[in-house]
Amino acid sequence: MKNDGLLVVISGPAGTGKGTVVKELMQDEKIRVSVSATTRSPREGEENGFHYHFLTREAFLQMIEKDGFLEYAQYCGNFYGSPKEQAESWMQEGMDVILEIEVQGCRKIKEKNPECVSIFVMPPSMEVLEQRLRGRGTETEEVILRRLERAKEEIRLSADYDYIVVNDTVEQCAADIRCVLKAEKLRAKRFVK
Amino acid sequence: MKNDGLLVVISGPAGTGKGTVVKELMQDEKIRVSVSATTRSPREGEENGFHYHFLTREAFLQMIEKDGFLEYAQYCGNFYGSPKEQAESWMQEGMDVILEIEVQGCRKIKEKNPECVSIFVMPPSMEVLEQRLRGRGTETEEVILRRLERAKEEIRLSADYDYIVVNDTVEQCAADIRCVLKAEKLRAKRFVK
Repeated sequence: MKNDGLLVVISGPAGTGKGTVVKELMQDEKIRVSVSATTRSPREGEENGFHYHFLTREAFLQMIEKDGFLEYAQYCGNFYGSPKEQAESWMQEGMDVILEIEVQGCRKIKEKNPECVSIFVMPPSMEVLEQRLRGRGTETEEVILRRLERAKEEIRLSADYDYIVVNDTVEQCAADIRCVLKAEKLRAKRFVK
Repeated sequence: MKNDGLLVVISGPAGTGKGTVVKELMQDEKIRVSVSATTRSPREGEENGFHYHFLTREAFLQMIEKDGFLEYAQYCGNFYGSPKEQAESWMQEGMDVILEIEVQGCRKIKEKNPECVSIFVMPPSMEVLEQRLRGRGTETEEVILRRLERAKEEIRLSADYDYIVVNDTVEQCAADIRCVLKAEKLRAKRFVK
């Protein structure tokens, strides 16, 4: 077995703060975050190759054909996917590669990559999640209620993940995830003789 | 699911220094080490209840009858076992309980307690293990060679453990084990709702 990095799936309801946790993890020079590809148009301020790889529909379909995605899905008429090549080359260099994806995407990744490590970021409570969603001050009441409903559904599915970390504070949550990644490398099945 | 402590099996070849690592772990107030019971006679300096619980053959057999051991075995005509009651009461108090036992004992524990966490302490290399065994200066050449042979056998069986930690330095090895215990508590299957 080679001393490869880990494929790490991180999911969690909108408003849990998993984006901030992932940013904190990126400080580590052995951690990389996969940039998703999409066929949707860039929004203002979104940078190609940083927020997303913006692809034409043809380019995306060609990449599907070449088995170029770890997982992909269609959502509101647009494609979204996690490009395989960059992730695999980082892992071969010993980097842990984080995919920040939805619960459905996680299932697809696990099917093809059973050795991946899946982590669900849980809000401390539904009350705190609601506060965080309202605190943004950018969403309508209807959107907030829909997100809370969706969060409940996602939390029900969290038992399918390997690990559940609670995002009480960003530092603690990132430290917990670092500990999980360290421990995963000590698993006997990954031991390099 | 209750917020119980973990049942932790630690094994490793003689001379790996696992005893020193376990002593280091005992500094943690949430970690307890199970004291084995035996029917063999105390050696000089051995204290009842600290090094072993010294039992008569009758008392040991009665405890077997009452299902009082997590595992037990016969070795050179004497019985050795891990008492169940103390370990379970510590775990209910939220303590992690370490059993320092042989590879065979680990298998028996796993059969009855599949949720236990098993950790194999590996020497950095066979050369270092040999140096450590010779460094004690107390064993005959024959005993050293027999221990090295046995170590090789045990290392072959290390793949059955959940985790493998290398004892390069006691501090690093103990830190790795602490990280494993922390991560195990973050596993979704142990998540307390």
